[in-house]
Amino acid sequence: MSEKAAIIGGGVIGGGWAARFLMNGWDVSVFDPAVDAERKVNEVIANARRSLPALFEASLPSEGTLTFARGLSEAVDGAAWIQESVPERLAIKHSVLRDIMRDASDEALVGSSTSGFKPSELNTGVATPPRVFVAHPFNPVYLLPLVELVGAATIVAKASDVLTSIAMKPLIVRKEIDAHIADRFLEAVWREALWLIKDDIATTEEIDHAIRYGFGLRWAQMGLFETYRIAGGEDGMAHFIEQFGPCLTWPWTKLMDVPDLTQELVQTIADQSDRQSGHHTIRELERIRDDNLVSIMRALKGRDWGAGAVLNEHDGRLRAKPEGGLSKEPIRSVERSIPIDWTDYNGHMNESRYGQVFSDAADTIMAMIGADAAYIDAGMSYFTVDTHTKFIDECRAGDAIHVDTFILQGEGKKLRLFHRMIRDHDVVATCTQLLIHVSLETRRSCAPTVAVAAKLASLVEAMAHVELPEDVG
Amino acid sequence: MSEKAAIIGGGVIGGGWAARFLMNGWDVSVFDPAVDAERKVNEVIANARRSLPALFEASLPSEGTLTFARGLSEAVDGAAWIQESVPERLAIKHSVLRDIMRDASDEALVGSSTSGFKPSELNTGVATPPRVFVAHPFNPVYLLPLVELVGAATIVAKASDVLTSIAMKPLIVRKEIDAHIADRFLEAVWREALWLIKDDIATTEEIDHAIRYGFGLRWAQMGLFETYRIAGGEDGMAHFIEQFGPCLTWPWTKLMDVPDLTQELVQTIADQSDRQSGHHTIRELERIRDDNLVSIMRALKGRDWGAGAVLNEHDGRLRAKPEGGLSKEPIRSVERSIPIDWTDYNGHMNESRYGQVFSDAADTIMAMIGADAAYIDAGMSYFTVDTHTKFIDECRAGDAIHVDTFILQGEGKKLRLFHRMIRDHDVVATCTQLLIHVSLETRRSCAPTVAVAAKLASLVEAMAHVELPEDVG
Repeated sequence: MSEKAAIIGGGVIGGGWAARFLMNGWDVSVFDPAVDAERKVNEVIANARRSLPALFEASLPSEGTLTFARGLSEAVDGAAWIQESVPERLAIKHSVLRDIMRDASDEALVGSSTSGFKPSELNTGVATPPRVFVAHPFNPVYLLPLVELVGAATIVAKASDVLTSIAMKPLIVRKEIDAHIADRFLEAVWREALWLIKDDIATTEEIDHAIRYGFGLRWAQMGLFETYRIAGGEDGMAHFIEQFGPCLTWPWTKLMDVPDLTQELVQTIADQSDRQSGHHTIRELERIRDDNLVSIMRALKGRDWGAGAVLNEHDGRLRAKPEGGLSKEPIRSVERSIPIDWTDYNGHMNESRYGQVFSDAADTIMAMIGADAAYIDAGMSYFTVDTHTKFIDECRAGDAIHVDTFILQGEGKKLRLFHRMIRDHDVVATCTQLLIHVSLETRRSCAPTVAVAAKLASLVEAMAHVELPEDVG
Repeated sequence: MSEKAAIIGGGVIGGGWAARFLMNGWDVSVFDPAVDAERKVNEVIANARRSLPALFEASLPSEGTLTFARGLSEAVDGAAWIQESVPERLAIKHSVLRDIMRDASDEALVGSSTSGFKPSELNTGVATPPRVFVAHPFNPVYLLPLVELVGAATIVAKASDVLTSIAMKPLIVRKEIDAHIADRFLEAVWREALWLIKDDIATTEEIDHAIRYGFGLRWAQMGLFETYRIAGGEDGMAHFIEQFGPCLTWPWTKLMDVPDLTQELVQTIADQSDRQSGHHTIRELERIRDDNLVSIMRALKGRDWGAGAVLNEHDGRLRAKPEGGLSKEPIRSVERSIPIDWTDYNGHMNESRYGQVFSDAADTIMAMIGADAAYIDAGMSYFTVDTHTKFIDECRAGDAIHVDTFILQGEGKKLRLFHRMIRDHDVVATCTQLLIHVSLETRRSCAPTVAVAAKLASLVEAMAHVELPEDVG
């Protein structure tokens, strides 16, 4: 039987919690008296349905049942987890938490999504001994793993297990403090951003650029200290802080209450950094960082967004090199190096990425005959319907490869290609590929335009004298 | 002929600049009197060689020539770009910049990597009219696109073109200010982090977790304001600021000089946000954000790092579901949904990702016969040597699919599989796959261990009664 979560407050955070529990197999009951709460929660869940399953290489459990309760008691009844996500006003939170306490079972875990209040504040006049804990998530709750947990140790340990089981990353905050940990950084950055805009130094867009093309990419993977540990190099973290420290006394900001960088504080940071990252050398950390950055930026290329859009533009410049005319040679359809994110547990390029290279090779031929991005936008394309791939040798990250492509057939709807993937002078794989011209509207085969058919015919004509290799399929 | 860049100062930043220019086809001359500068620069370039080419789907130009100059004059001679990256002390920078001015050609662009000084400070006693500009990059310089440009408008415009041509993203800072833009945020976060450590609220590791499992993932793609625009929802940015604003007066931090949130400042921010992101609805921005997050976190899965490691652990939990014994059914080797980063310009799953699914299917069979992660660590595995794939129907992001696998042959070194990829009840692709057992040491074929051979034999035996489908290759 599914466990039940009660979500009290159906805004974007409550909706995110509902989606997170629901899609991990929990039954969810939402209570929010606002008239549009049901619509808003369903919109968040719709977003979650289209994105959350994609994070995993296996199916999630079957979705639980979602209900919208008419009252708080009904929502809370039988719930193993109760999550309060009402507006950030202490009086409102107290009132709702007291109602929850009245109806909750003794075993229920009662979390608050508060971004600012401490458990001691939440529990005052609500629960003795203190039972409510902070479970502070980050928007979008259904995707971002982080949740800050603050509260009584035994209760928080149980909560951590539950959150781990729904694919979250609990961070147990050891001492209660206003705004926990992450939001203190968000606040600090927010204040600085307000000053920059007020003084007309930067616009919102320029500030976003300063973040997402630079340190944002570092922080997505390593955070602050591991990044700086690398910057400090072999001289170590204490040396780095002593170098960087003085900058803190410069007139760099209007917010200038800075802790004294005593020898003791420097040593504390250096020791903590050793415990955190000391099992990797700086060289190892550099390469981990670089591989992560390459993978993240390549992921953003696929979305044509942020740093990825910058790289796509540069691909365009790299490809704009003048090309020679047609000759008796096969077509050099791909020329690239093998990125780290294409390798697998065998330490070599995964078989599927050979397919990626041959797919890219076909794209080059399509572009040559006018079946390019504009043609695809206009509603026609080629689909691959059959491939036969022979894997002859391994490729590793960093290998420079190219593909020579031969046209075996190009008439009517059919385009049959033979690709040889080559590293130095060795053939590492071959692929015979049958593509069919299609309408992207009907998703069915159809004849290409006259212009594309004509270009294909002249390419076939020009290639007629190219000798086919012996390994052609 | 290649252009020449002079890199003055060969630390991690100077080395990064050298690598960035060199690998984009520029000749590079480095000057740094330190005895170990050559070694350090070469180490940075080695890192760049293994990572930078992987960002692109085309080859970079041939590398330029790298030289280490005996003096500053020799380095600067004939250089079109001169980049100063000496220690962050104004007297040292002035001295080096005066030497550069003496030897630079009139057309040379002279940038400083300073993270703190303003162009007016750098040019004092160095160049009239002011010629030195700030070109502030971010570590690792060879990978991160951002570079802040501050200085005379006409010079900075030329510099921007050059930096774009070496795949960077110039951000022109309109008014000079201490620490430009990005480092003001880094400083604000650094100060807050020092307080948290000093007061023993959080360790370096806990702080890094608070960043990289949460808002760091948001900032890698959208930055601060576009993210908050989404949080504000359909009510708009001004509403969001008015809601969030009051938090700034709470006792959340020891750094409390906060600008007044006047109506005018709120309106300025809202207007700028409209200009930046107003061409997308909030719903569109949510989906862009979610697709980016999925792609970034999936990229980190491949590196088993940060948020990606959290997801891999959860994959393990999802797969730990009890499985039934062997039966007369084919093996359910894959069960998953299609992620957004597997789709291409045709709006459907790219052909190479069908290959990914079949590769994963083979992994399941390997794990069943004991050729699992531990076996691979011990030095043996199976390599795919031949595949024949028939693409029958399209798959789109979000589609739930599974794979039924039949064992056609399993004896000696050979393992021949037939996979049917199924959506609902329709076969969308089939693949015949020949795998050969190999030693990962010699990278040559060899017999599997007795244990694996025995498990394979019993699997083949158990599957002997499974009827092969008609579409088997």
